[in-house]
Amino acid sequence: MSDTHTLTIADLEERVKAIFLKGGLSALQAAAITRVIVAAERDACKSHGIYRIEGALRTVKAGKVNPVAKPELLPQLRSAVVKVDAKGGFANAAFELGLPVLAERARSSGIAALAINDCTHFSALWPEAEALTALGLAGIVMCPSYATVAPSGGTKPLLGTNPLAFGWPRTDKPPYVFDFATSVAARGEIELHRRAGKALPEGWAIDANGQPTTDPEAALAGAMLPFGEHKGSAISTMIELLAGIMIGDLTSPEVLEALGSTALAPAHGELIIAFSPEGFGADRPGNPFARAEILFEAMLGQGARLPSQRRYAARAKSEAGGIVLTASEMEQLARLHSLGLNAV
Amino acid sequence: MSDTHTLTIADLEERVKAIFLKGGLSALQAAAITRVIVAAERDACKSHGIYRIEGALRTVKAGKVNPVAKPELLPQLRSAVVKVDAKGGFANAAFELGLPVLAERARSSGIAALAINDCTHFSALWPEAEALTALGLAGIVMCPSYATVAPSGGTKPLLGTNPLAFGWPRTDKPPYVFDFATSVAARGEIELHRRAGKALPEGWAIDANGQPTTDPEAALAGAMLPFGEHKGSAISTMIELLAGIMIGDLTSPEVLEALGSTALAPAHGELIIAFSPEGFGADRPGNPFARAEILFEAMLGQGARLPSQRRYAARAKSEAGGIVLTASEMEQLARLHSLGLNAV
Repeated sequence: MSDTHTLTIADLEERVKAIFLKGGLSALQAAAITRVIVAAERDACKSHGIYRIEGALRTVKAGKVNPVAKPELLPQLRSAVVKVDAKGGFANAAFELGLPVLAERARSSGIAALAINDCTHFSALWPEAEALTALGLAGIVMCPSYATVAPSGGTKPLLGTNPLAFGWPRTDKPPYVFDFATSVAARGEIELHRRAGKALPEGWAIDANGQPTTDPEAALAGAMLPFGEHKGSAISTMIELLAGIMIGDLTSPEVLEALGSTALAPAHGELIIAFSPEGFGADRPGNPFARAEILFEAMLGQGARLPSQRRYAARAKSEAGGIVLTASEMEQLARLHSLGLNAV
Repeated sequence: MSDTHTLTIADLEERVKAIFLKGGLSALQAAAITRVIVAAERDACKSHGIYRIEGALRTVKAGKVNPVAKPELLPQLRSAVVKVDAKGGFANAAFELGLPVLAERARSSGIAALAINDCTHFSALWPEAEALTALGLAGIVMCPSYATVAPSGGTKPLLGTNPLAFGWPRTDKPPYVFDFATSVAARGEIELHRRAGKALPEGWAIDANGQPTTDPEAALAGAMLPFGEHKGSAISTMIELLAGIMIGDLTSPEVLEALGSTALAPAHGELIIAFSPEGFGADRPGNPFARAEILFEAMLGQGARLPSQRRYAARAKSEAGGIVLTASEMEQLARLHSLGLNAV
């Protein structure tokens, strides 16, 4: 098609990185954030792809993230807890710094956690989950967001969309990874509906008066709803408690108060729990990875899909044939590159 | 009312324990299982109260649980992982053995896990979550069940109802605790509908042909559905992977195959993850427990409820005025006590 452009993954990576460097990010920050944005675009995860560049730059321009932060690995507080102070930078570089230490601790302790403080996290969590599985570890990842979701039975935004991700390594196959918002829909999906002028499905949101709505604008002015009613609401609350309060970082209502806007990427903490299947099962018969395959096969055999299957299919396609962008996406990339922070 | 009887908690405990002793349980096993069953009855959690005694005895009679098992604390495999071999007994005595060691490790390591192997778990998980909070720890608890739930998009039972529980300590108040099945409804609730001859709400289950049904019998012959569609299905799968496969114990389909029946309590493992809020937040400002109260107050302030509130209200009532049982419940207790395993 004449109005689309096909780029190799490496080419897109170069362009996105150049935009972030132009926007004032250090090489360390730019490289790490580029990796996750391009990975999302590669996997056809549009809501976490290049669409997010503008918001990241807006957050830089507003002075709410430190574009040249050098994350710091903190002295050991507890033997199975690794802490990284992101120093107000994006979470990605902090995660890359903490990951090898987390993996080493998870192997020696059986279970370990990485807490990232004072970071700006605006991407999906599956990159973290996948990174753990690439090291042979299973893991749970969570972070608060900003107050946009009403707790079950409530009427006002309090919880974040608080994503929860999980990864389990598979041999010679992409890992079992899920990553979802604990709201019915991700905020990015509501944004995309708004931009497209489309009504929301019912059950996604309430308006500013606490009444159900399908209007994206009214939803953004009101509150989203948790998935699975009181159960999703409870999981979202757990994320506030563990990945906000427990690690000594902001909760979703505190983030919103600190930022004063939902148009900027939220600053807060992130919690990653890593498990060593070898550490847990060493005294028991059976290979955990081989046994997991039996479970996955049984699911696929009855017609159920594994999470991330669509993402992996898109990845294979991108790796083979490149990433396809629209003319307007290409223009946006060019504009961001030529104007830098003046474009946002 | 003439057809109800009011018992003190201590009185009910004595009666239930006597039934289990008569049923052949050792003092250790009987005391531990009695504690959780009476706690459930005290909290008006009927589906996990004295109603479960019969199933427990049936499982003993079928030779699927060792009523005199002495759980064993295993030599340390990894520094943050505590393992207890339940030796085929009920999970409760094994948990009580492992808990103090888990708490000590969580305090020193920041995070730690207790894996219980080869146990029969048929109760709720909130007793474990509450026990952690009583020691000032936060915790996540999970276990597989037996294959009664179809994965999202599937047509046949594969996953268990796989409960997930979480606890956070509160000062001078009952803890923040949630505990729910990752199926739309707990199997016990479907059983109660069947016994009462009531139709199920829509969306709870599919029949043996994979079609939606509201008939409890058809649901029990078919499959239950996960809560929150693909999200609940993913969480349930995570529980199979972590609390089944990773700890070297049975998955829900394996449990069903091993037991050959859903009328017996499932034998499997259980995973308890404990967090020390002090260990995670030591380098950060703010008291985590005081900060959590702000979040809880904000929820209550907008009309949302905290999970377990109904349970704690029932508990306060039971503690003040005793536990009220129906005449038929009293008869059942008497029958179980006089006949022991011959009653089931």
